[in-house]
Amino acid sequence: MYRNAPGAEREPDRAKHQVNGGPDANKIRTPVEMTDELLERFFKGDTRALSRIITRVENRTPDSLSLLQELFAHSGKAQILGITGSPGAGKSTLVDRLAQAYRQRGNMLAIVAIDPSSPFTGGAILGDRIRMQTQGIDPGVYIRSMATRGHLGGLATATADVVTVLDAAGKNPIMVETVGVGQDEIDIVKLADVSVVVLVPGMGDDVQALKAGIMEIGDIFVINKCDRPGVDKMERAVLATLSLAHRADGWEPPVVKTVATEGRGIDELVETIGRCYSFLQNSPSRVQKKQEAARQRLVTLLEERLLKTTVQHVFPNGEFNNVVGQIADRKQDPYSIVDAIIQKLRFK
Amino acid sequence: MYRNAPGAEREPDRAKHQVNGGPDANKIRTPVEMTDELLERFFKGDTRALSRIITRVENRTPDSLSLLQELFAHSGKAQILGITGSPGAGKSTLVDRLAQAYRQRGNMLAIVAIDPSSPFTGGAILGDRIRMQTQGIDPGVYIRSMATRGHLGGLATATADVVTVLDAAGKNPIMVETVGVGQDEIDIVKLADVSVVVLVPGMGDDVQALKAGIMEIGDIFVINKCDRPGVDKMERAVLATLSLAHRADGWEPPVVKTVATEGRGIDELVETIGRCYSFLQNSPSRVQKKQEAARQRLVTLLEERLLKTTVQHVFPNGEFNNVVGQIADRKQDPYSIVDAIIQKLRFK
Repeated sequence: MYRNAPGAEREPDRAKHQVNGGPDANKIRTPVEMTDELLERFFKGDTRALSRIITRVENRTPDSLSLLQELFAHSGKAQILGITGSPGAGKSTLVDRLAQAYRQRGNMLAIVAIDPSSPFTGGAILGDRIRMQTQGIDPGVYIRSMATRGHLGGLATATADVVTVLDAAGKNPIMVETVGVGQDEIDIVKLADVSVVVLVPGMGDDVQALKAGIMEIGDIFVINKCDRPGVDKMERAVLATLSLAHRADGWEPPVVKTVATEGRGIDELVETIGRCYSFLQNSPSRVQKKQEAARQRLVTLLEERLLKTTVQHVFPNGEFNNVVGQIADRKQDPYSIVDAIIQKLRFK
Repeated sequence: MYRNAPGAEREPDRAKHQVNGGPDANKIRTPVEMTDELLERFFKGDTRALSRIITRVENRTPDSLSLLQELFAHSGKAQILGITGSPGAGKSTLVDRLAQAYRQRGNMLAIVAIDPSSPFTGGAILGDRIRMQTQGIDPGVYIRSMATRGHLGGLATATADVVTVLDAAGKNPIMVETVGVGQDEIDIVKLADVSVVVLVPGMGDDVQALKAGIMEIGDIFVINKCDRPGVDKMERAVLATLSLAHRADGWEPPVVKTVATEGRGIDELVETIGRCYSFLQNSPSRVQKKQEAARQRLVTLLEERLLKTTVQHVFPNGEFNNVVGQIADRKQDPYSIVDAIIQKLRFK
């Protein structure tokens, strides 16, 4: 637990970590001191401290583990909303309008926008800058972009960690906006309490849209840009597909029609999200969903640490690269190498 | 190495594994015997043996490891082509036409179609059945669908393993067809010697299509359905985006226009793929790309085995589920649990 009271209670920690202490010890800012300071500012609602913690968590700095251990106990309060849909469906505008609506209801909220990454630069392609139109100046809406690539433990783990930080910061709801329907997106959607799938009328062949798997991850379907022709056809296609799916939790996903650019349908969507959240929270399958999310998180964290620790122990002098080279040249096969590494493993 | 000569050479193996042997030993088909039989038929070109081995590899049966160890040495000869693009771009038709063209050139080839999975059933949504129109009756084209979900070591590893099997079977080229631009798809494309991105004129807002990251993974861009309006606009947008990207290998991705349904542009595409393959094979950055693929493969295989072995040792009686439950209830945090597990790890 984070100790709110500074002073005496923190002394043991400080003393423990200041092994190089002395007359100048107060000037040397050890990592632990900085972490404590950061957490203190974080819990006071300091946005820069929040951003800094998220950056550390994303970059997996050495202190990010203790930060997350600290913050995990403070999380679990926010409604987490997943907003997904193809590029061009108008997700960003919809999310901006939802944010406005939640602000009007007095919420302090967060938007996590998962941006496709450039395989060349590794960075996000869109970046925060595009998102600043409506909400950027309102301190009640915290916006964070995350690149899809370059996360050590995978995008889903990184997103879960960032959501944990935002949750501990008291942001509610937390809207996670993703593009596409890859495995990563589906894993991210699993984090969400309520998943909203955004469609537009006439998006290519309707059947094509349905077969891409996007239909099966939604708790609520939004037909955005519904001032365009083809709304009824799209709605019929959605309802027909949904009628084939049997949900164990008994929730029947509704269709909400919006024109996000004009703010039409936004209040109905907020109301529908609230109703869905209440329903799913009280559903028996909620426990199973939470356990599935916890399992996935534990597994990906464990995989990451196991790999790192094992490579460090088995290849202490960077021989891992030689082995990789031999596989690339087909002088060794990866299956036998993995077998040999597993043989070295022991447990206390 | 696989021993082609049956008989004496195989006796030691057989004896070793027939610990329960006796008068009826010849009737008891041990797993190793079956594997040997399967490999023998596989190397004779038996398609059912090929399919059976792929199924075992996909399902990670106990003998799949030795199968892959055996086959890895026989792989590395095929041209691996990645074909990616949004749903509705006409990829399947294009791949079918490419397959016809390669057949006319005398190739025995394979198509691996990565199908979006249903999160409800876990199975592939499209399935092989849709692909059977043109090629299904030709034994020279081997078609395999893979679901995007439910692979223990992840989709990219499973695809690499399946491609290894097909490669060892002498299929060439091997076309891997994927939907979307998630991390998984990008990892799969990394396997490919040549990546083809399929676009269509007027697919939503051009900028939307470009920003989704799909532009940066292609060695060749196909504008399919180019009997539709908007071809020139799309081509200009593609070339403008490509002009921003600097490729270390010096290859300048060309744009090829096709109408796959009519077979138009297919011969040019085959020629372009061949030219690109030769160029990239002789490029110095080819070594780096191969090493990157080898590293990714080793890492994902290692992660999978490390996780399995560790969970079995640390939680021999299924206590893993209890831990997951405590995380779901926020009674424990996953970071501390992973830390405790890592502390138990030792190496010989």
